[in-house]
Amino acid sequence: MKAKEMMDKDFVYVSADDTIEEVSIKMEASRKFTTPVIDSDKKLIGWITSFDITKGLRENKKFIHEVMSPKEDIKYMHENDPSRLAVLETSDSKLISIPVLDDNEVVIGVIRSFDIVNTLSSLYEVKVSKLYEAMEKQLKGVSWDELMEASAIISTRTTGQRIKPGEYERRIKDSTFGEAIWATGGLERFFVGLIAVGELVIARKVGKAR
Amino acid sequence: MKAKEMMDKDFVYVSADDTIEEVSIKMEASRKFTTPVIDSDKKLIGWITSFDITKGLRENKKFIHEVMSPKEDIKYMHENDPSRLAVLETSDSKLISIPVLDDNEVVIGVIRSFDIVNTLSSLYEVKVSKLYEAMEKQLKGVSWDELMEASAIISTRTTGQRIKPGEYERRIKDSTFGEAIWATGGLERFFVGLIAVGELVIARKVGKAR
Repeated sequence: MKAKEMMDKDFVYVSADDTIEEVSIKMEASRKFTTPVIDSDKKLIGWITSFDITKGLRENKKFIHEVMSPKEDIKYMHENDPSRLAVLETSDSKLISIPVLDDNEVVIGVIRSFDIVNTLSSLYEVKVSKLYEAMEKQLKGVSWDELMEASAIISTRTTGQRIKPGEYERRIKDSTFGEAIWATGGLERFFVGLIAVGELVIARKVGKAR
Repeated sequence: MKAKEMMDKDFVYVSADDTIEEVSIKMEASRKFTTPVIDSDKKLIGWITSFDITKGLRENKKFIHEVMSPKEDIKYMHENDPSRLAVLETSDSKLISIPVLDDNEVVIGVIRSFDIVNTLSSLYEVKVSKLYEAMEKQLKGVSWDELMEASAIISTRTTGQRIKPGEYERRIKDSTFGEAIWATGGLERFFVGLIAVGELVIARKVGKAR
């Protein structure tokens, strides 16, 4: 995934010659704590945060160029950079947003922390039943009921708590990958459970075929 | 995972009687765009964002109580709420932070968007090789080399590009679960590939045993 696929194209921007007062109103209205400063070619020249604005207002400064951080002091990305870099920057530097530039250094979007949360959480929201459906499709000759039966056996064996296939099926119907990972104690454990289920259904299939 | 496990306990807070000017300095110094407003018992009574501060400074307001949002207008969580709720709030309402309360309504932490990014991205950063190690451990009697061999066969079959076991091994050594998901085109596809590998090594194991 590239930066341009994760960025928000609906961002506000300001000029170095705008007044701090008008920018503060613009940022409040659009609910943006940060905004890029661009020149007349829309190229990035600086960055404004609400902290620059509050300080500027307090100290009676007038223009954005008096309070902005210059381009060389800020983090930015190019549109084809891997969006993973934005994730790392955000969690390392506690940045809430990073401007995204095209090859001409023109600002074309901003990646904000909730764009990242959105993208990352979509993985967590995948239904566990989808994974079972994929498994059923891959393991030709194994039925859904056989999968649920094997899962109930593995789950009983792992947790020590008896669970019936129908109960297991109801449980995975509503649960997400994220919940399953928290519940089993991590990706590796969740994955080991699924491999164990696969192993059992295959062993049973081979047993029947004999 | 509960809210209290995801929250940042290192947060700043302010009083309704603090001046807007001193709070603005405090927020700049601690780099917080938002902060809870508490009473003398540390109970939550309101919420301040940088937008309240800029508006207050511009309009010559003096005290925090003149510009804060009251408790009834803001989102907050309790410590034992599932942290998943914070993720949903953040991505739905584009909030960058949510205060966390104990049973007495005392503020004990704040969940910020980068705390969420941190937690969510830790899953993406799991090494693919860890999953293979878990698989090797679960599938007793299957060696690491057999796993790599099966993986190279499945990968060649799926992508149409020949890859040798050693090459495959080098590739997964450096790659993360997140990268693997982007590369294969989603969790279900990645998962189907792993099931296919499991199926193949088990079939080979059964074949040998005969």
